[in-house]
Amino acid sequence: MEDLYDLIIIGGGPAGISAGIYASRQNLKTLLLSKSFGGQMTRKAVNIENYPGFEEISGFDLIQKFERQLRRQKIDIRLEEVTKLKKSGNKFLVFVKNKQEFSAKTVIVATGADPRPLEAPGEKKFIGRGVSYCTACDGPIFKDKSVSVIGGGNSGFEAAIFLSEYAKKVYILECGKTACADETIQKQAKATKKIEVITGAVLKRIQGQDFVDSIIYENLKTKELEKLDVQGVFIEIGSQPATSFLEDLVDFNKRDEIIVDPKSGQTKTPGLFSAGDVDDVPYKQIVIAAGEGAKAALSAYNYIKKF
Amino acid sequence: MEDLYDLIIIGGGPAGISAGIYASRQNLKTLLLSKSFGGQMTRKAVNIENYPGFEEISGFDLIQKFERQLRRQKIDIRLEEVTKLKKSGNKFLVFVKNKQEFSAKTVIVATGADPRPLEAPGEKKFIGRGVSYCTACDGPIFKDKSVSVIGGGNSGFEAAIFLSEYAKKVYILECGKTACADETIQKQAKATKKIEVITGAVLKRIQGQDFVDSIIYENLKTKELEKLDVQGVFIEIGSQPATSFLEDLVDFNKRDEIIVDPKSGQTKTPGLFSAGDVDDVPYKQIVIAAGEGAKAALSAYNYIKKF
Repeated sequence: MEDLYDLIIIGGGPAGISAGIYASRQNLKTLLLSKSFGGQMTRKAVNIENYPGFEEISGFDLIQKFERQLRRQKIDIRLEEVTKLKKSGNKFLVFVKNKQEFSAKTVIVATGADPRPLEAPGEKKFIGRGVSYCTACDGPIFKDKSVSVIGGGNSGFEAAIFLSEYAKKVYILECGKTACADETIQKQAKATKKIEVITGAVLKRIQGQDFVDSIIYENLKTKELEKLDVQGVFIEIGSQPATSFLEDLVDFNKRDEIIVDPKSGQTKTPGLFSAGDVDDVPYKQIVIAAGEGAKAALSAYNYIKKF
Repeated sequence: MEDLYDLIIIGGGPAGISAGIYASRQNLKTLLLSKSFGGQMTRKAVNIENYPGFEEISGFDLIQKFERQLRRQKIDIRLEEVTKLKKSGNKFLVFVKNKQEFSAKTVIVATGADPRPLEAPGEKKFIGRGVSYCTACDGPIFKDKSVSVIGGGNSGFEAAIFLSEYAKKVYILECGKTACADETIQKQAKATKKIEVITGAVLKRIQGQDFVDSIIYENLKTKELEKLDVQGVFIEIGSQPATSFLEDLVDFNKRDEIIVDPKSGQTKTPGLFSAGDVDDVPYKQIVIAAGEGAKAALSAYNYIKKF
């Protein structure tokens, strides 16, 4: 059992880091727990152009700046995965994978969201051997290969454009009748001349020997199964909030996001706050997550003053 | 009468600029109207250390980066002061000082807040001749002079610390029994050895010939009037939302802030949004204002899709 912290922040993406900067500057005795730094920013394939202050920066570079700024503060940081959160009296107990336990007066959950798996046959088997949820990490491996992106939203098209710099051919499979990415990004994709969009296509199977060599999809118009020879499958069908450790301390909406008071980040449990993509504040954007992280930290500070 | 814009943003601080970046990237035909760029950031005397992405940066440098990023987008920008906003049918009409009128489907009010005047005798008369609301702008003029700061909150102490680099003596006058700035910043002030805090002191008069030469304050303990020989008076007693052009399109809270839905920035008038220090979202911080600006722009985009 360690000392009692004022605040434990769970998560090391933009919301968690911003909360950490603000909390430590308010002199809160703070611990930040996270599996790693960066959250979804490290998986972003295209450069970020909409975070105010940087005309164009990679997700990797921006998160490094965030992390460096956080480490300048007086704050404890441990790269550990949180497995359970409990409230006991007016204290929170936070358990991590190695069985250690930390306690705090307040907690901010800023665990973000994980890529949503497709749950197609072969998907799990070929993770790291052709199946990827991170274009920025794995895209360059597929130089001169054929690859497919599953999902015709903005992130699917962004992934495809990034991949087109390496792969010789990129298929985008979209189960709907039309792709729903913004028009400008669809135009950009078209301009690459390497990207082919297949709508009304439902992935049925990912197959291969040691590595992926092809996929089978259903053509919804003809009801026939069709085969595409591809060596890579990038899944871009959205994300799911990372909340498995939370149990009944919070309420969730239909999308499994934590319901918060958007003015403060307060959840239904006093002293328990949430910020960033894990909660039900709309529009998942870096600057919004960073703003909500600052709010949650200042709200935790106000809560502690009355503790 | 100009073309109909999708969106007119009023204000060129962090909230307005962030809204502009997001709106133009959503392909909204957007006009940004503002007296100037920067809002309160240009008046900030101390470096900013809590905007995620920059370990330490002056308000002036950060706003320049914001402005440069905005000007890279497809957006009309006019440095004009808005005098009136009206709704006519389902369009908004925005009037500027030179009598020109612009129209748009949606409007985001991001006019921020102005320094609150003290309304003490002599204050108006000596503006620009000893009385200042902007330490960063006017502080360096008072090299080797004695100055006073009115207000013992964080911004008063920050101003005093900045001034202590130039002035030979800095008095902080606080009307309450104790100064309410954070402890760490009070300690920093003490360490300069040039700053004297006078609590229970109510400013009664600012006096001089052409320029300020002294102030008279009431000592609340003794009920006596006392005189301080100072050449500068910096007023740091908070700010007031800049909403004079708005009339009855929005509701205000007790602090004269625009009441919004914090999830979207929507005011009581459909299509009219607000973001940043002018609205009732708590915690006035740059990263929070920038996040709220992004939210308001994305909300305006969703509103227009249904227009």
